[in-house]
Amino acid sequence: MSLAAVEVQTAIDQLRVLLGDRLSVSTGVRDHHSRDESWHHPHRPDAVAFPNSTEEVAEIVRICAAHRTPVVAYGTGTSLEGAVIPTHGGVVVDLANMNQVLRVNAEDLDATVQARVTRKQLNEFIREQGLFFPIDPGADASLGGMAATRASGTNAVRYGTMRENVLALTVVMADGRIIRTSRRARKSAAGYDLTRLFVGSEGTLGIITEVTLRLYGLPEAIAAAVCSFGSIKGAVDTVISTIQLGVPVARIELLDDVQMDAVNRFSNLSYPVKDTLFIEFHGTEAGVKEQAELVQSLAADNDGGEFRWATRQEERTALWTARHDVTYANKALRPGCEIWATDVCVPISKLTQCILETKADLKQSFLIAPLVGHVGDGNFHLGFLINRDDPAELAEAERLNERLILRALALDGTCTGEHGIGLGKQKFLVAEHGEAVTVMRQIKQALDPLNILNPGKIFSV
Amino acid sequence: MSLAAVEVQTAIDQLRVLLGDRLSVSTGVRDHHSRDESWHHPHRPDAVAFPNSTEEVAEIVRICAAHRTPVVAYGTGTSLEGAVIPTHGGVVVDLANMNQVLRVNAEDLDATVQARVTRKQLNEFIREQGLFFPIDPGADASLGGMAATRASGTNAVRYGTMRENVLALTVVMADGRIIRTSRRARKSAAGYDLTRLFVGSEGTLGIITEVTLRLYGLPEAIAAAVCSFGSIKGAVDTVISTIQLGVPVARIELLDDVQMDAVNRFSNLSYPVKDTLFIEFHGTEAGVKEQAELVQSLAADNDGGEFRWATRQEERTALWTARHDVTYANKALRPGCEIWATDVCVPISKLTQCILETKADLKQSFLIAPLVGHVGDGNFHLGFLINRDDPAELAEAERLNERLILRALALDGTCTGEHGIGLGKQKFLVAEHGEAVTVMRQIKQALDPLNILNPGKIFSV
Repeated sequence: MSLAAVEVQTAIDQLRVLLGDRLSVSTGVRDHHSRDESWHHPHRPDAVAFPNSTEEVAEIVRICAAHRTPVVAYGTGTSLEGAVIPTHGGVVVDLANMNQVLRVNAEDLDATVQARVTRKQLNEFIREQGLFFPIDPGADASLGGMAATRASGTNAVRYGTMRENVLALTVVMADGRIIRTSRRARKSAAGYDLTRLFVGSEGTLGIITEVTLRLYGLPEAIAAAVCSFGSIKGAVDTVISTIQLGVPVARIELLDDVQMDAVNRFSNLSYPVKDTLFIEFHGTEAGVKEQAELVQSLAADNDGGEFRWATRQEERTALWTARHDVTYANKALRPGCEIWATDVCVPISKLTQCILETKADLKQSFLIAPLVGHVGDGNFHLGFLINRDDPAELAEAERLNERLILRALALDGTCTGEHGIGLGKQKFLVAEHGEAVTVMRQIKQALDPLNILNPGKIFSV
Repeated sequence: MSLAAVEVQTAIDQLRVLLGDRLSVSTGVRDHHSRDESWHHPHRPDAVAFPNSTEEVAEIVRICAAHRTPVVAYGTGTSLEGAVIPTHGGVVVDLANMNQVLRVNAEDLDATVQARVTRKQLNEFIREQGLFFPIDPGADASLGGMAATRASGTNAVRYGTMRENVLALTVVMADGRIIRTSRRARKSAAGYDLTRLFVGSEGTLGIITEVTLRLYGLPEAIAAAVCSFGSIKGAVDTVISTIQLGVPVARIELLDDVQMDAVNRFSNLSYPVKDTLFIEFHGTEAGVKEQAELVQSLAADNDGGEFRWATRQEERTALWTARHDVTYANKALRPGCEIWATDVCVPISKLTQCILETKADLKQSFLIAPLVGHVGDGNFHLGFLINRDDPAELAEAERLNERLILRALALDGTCTGEHGIGLGKQKFLVAEHGEAVTVMRQIKQALDPLNILNPGKIFSV
């Protein structure tokens, strides 16, 4: 046994005293925590802890710090970039027991939840009060995990991302200190914005245990529609005009023809196999009507067909379920495959160029990769269908992914709009941020000098 | 001469070689940079530098770092909490020459400006393109300074604060490194959110030299109105209902009876001397009408009078000029006085309680302090009219201010919604954030180990 392994074993022994049977070293449990929904290869942790409280998380971190044992926070395991894979072993802290909504304040339109409450769970909880939480990355992810990856998704074009919708966090630091990053006031100029520092830090600066979120009143009126286009340029140009005119669309999603084919097959639908927009409007009755008319006229100017409306709640649910199931739809296109999901985000004026060049690339490749995106933000995804054990396929996905990202960066965009850096985007971090990465590293070094918090993520070390 | 003084002198000598006559040690120039618009006592810097570029700022910082000489960035000097007073001497970096709009991209609704461009200057520049930048703290502040203090103001209730409207920054670090914090994409999950870390850091972590901002299309329709109320509770309750119903008001400002009296006198107006709301609506013609009708009915339910509309641009300008001139109006109430401006922000459900208790306090005091606020955010200000050389008045303002802040903190609010910590709010930072302040200090220590960047601000050292 190496010295490091002895230290990890000592930490595990102490954690067992603290947690009893809420500390597991079983192969099954460790396997379950070895992976996420990405294409990255799994890696088993040495143990998995199931704390019941922020104080227990702090105690776990203190023990791990004393023995230089890695600590990786785990929510629902739905990362698409390997953010929760414990590549350096150590202890996974599964927050499964921390799943209570602690407080809802309808008057202030906010709520505080434990980190493992999922977005759907919160929305169930608050629906009767006429409230909703809009951020929707597709997966029913934990709100702590969504904060840690700065998640966004379909509604971000109107409501912002987790960056705009987290009011405060409770965080356990690398030495076990517990901090609260902010009060409940809507704004503050009191000191550094620690909330935003932890939002998107992917568990590398602290472990988020509680999240205070902004809520919204359920819109008086909602209308959703699907519109097919004669070309992808027409669809994207419609989106660009919509955003430039300031129409407050709630969702505006692009699915290319390849993606629509997969969606039709998987969800047993019969949409035209064309480049398509899924759109949703929120507002007053009059406001929704006004928005819808404007976007319909923009679509008509850009080779768009009729709007197919989903007015009843069940129809809208079916529509958005089909949209959210694209990963499963894509997997079904090639049974047994893995999906290498990647995402970039560019200034909206560059979106048509970025998508057209990307589609041209894909046309010349032997890999299939449906394209889908939150295009109102300039954000889109490719899902490469790969056999991750086939080096030729991996190499081709890597080549296409690299071309996509360098294209986005050349257009003043980012290498990831919402999936995070995790393992898969590390090589592009410096290309994107240059010298600023040295500042990020200084902050990591200052707050986690032993590098025990989710080591090997964001920065390759 | 102390060793420290010799070091500062050496730095100044080297800066003169670099900058020639753009380095000043004249008493007049140093005096001008010894103060801001706060009540805090002035302190002269040893020299004032006028760089022309980010690279020159970096060179200045490198020279100052080599000689452990404080560096304080200076925009328009409109801080209300002493943020730009060089309390430790050293070199003030006046960015006056860095006043160019570098790029406007109407298609992406963004612009990049040098730090000393003011908000009015930017708005002049972009108006012909049908665009505007909404953040409006009253003063015609520099956009770099507004970023550094996380400014907000009248439009924040709808458009957010500098936190939501800065897309990227160019920053000179304490060792002279130049970083760019982000690309132009609307969102990103690529690494730590350095943009938000520098927004609100008050020049203590780096010197902001360029700012990339979100812009907005000028609204199709704008309407503004003034409404007087029978009680301050009626006015505040109207605001609370407006926010809770999700009405997207652009501005909703409270001026209490004392403030209205001052405004009438100073701006030669004849509004009723009552607790009053100034309100503005932005949207489509139909949307503005819908919003206005809703808020009028809420006001009527809460003892509000008729809406007095300002429909023409000149009328609106007069209305908001009167609002923005409150500081001058308050000074005119007592010629020769200083204004001790303070601000707090609480969750909206606590706003009525916080304001009523504060008004009760003021009633029993011998000091006059008009109350005005961006109440849609839960944010309001008092302006104590004081003679800062009179210890009794200072003590009374301090007592009232402390009671106000402890009240706001007890209601889960913040000790400053928008003015910043600067010098005046340091004693409340730990009361508000507790252990989180130690994390802020770790970051400061990591990024500015010599403590040369605006020393003595935010943290008392």
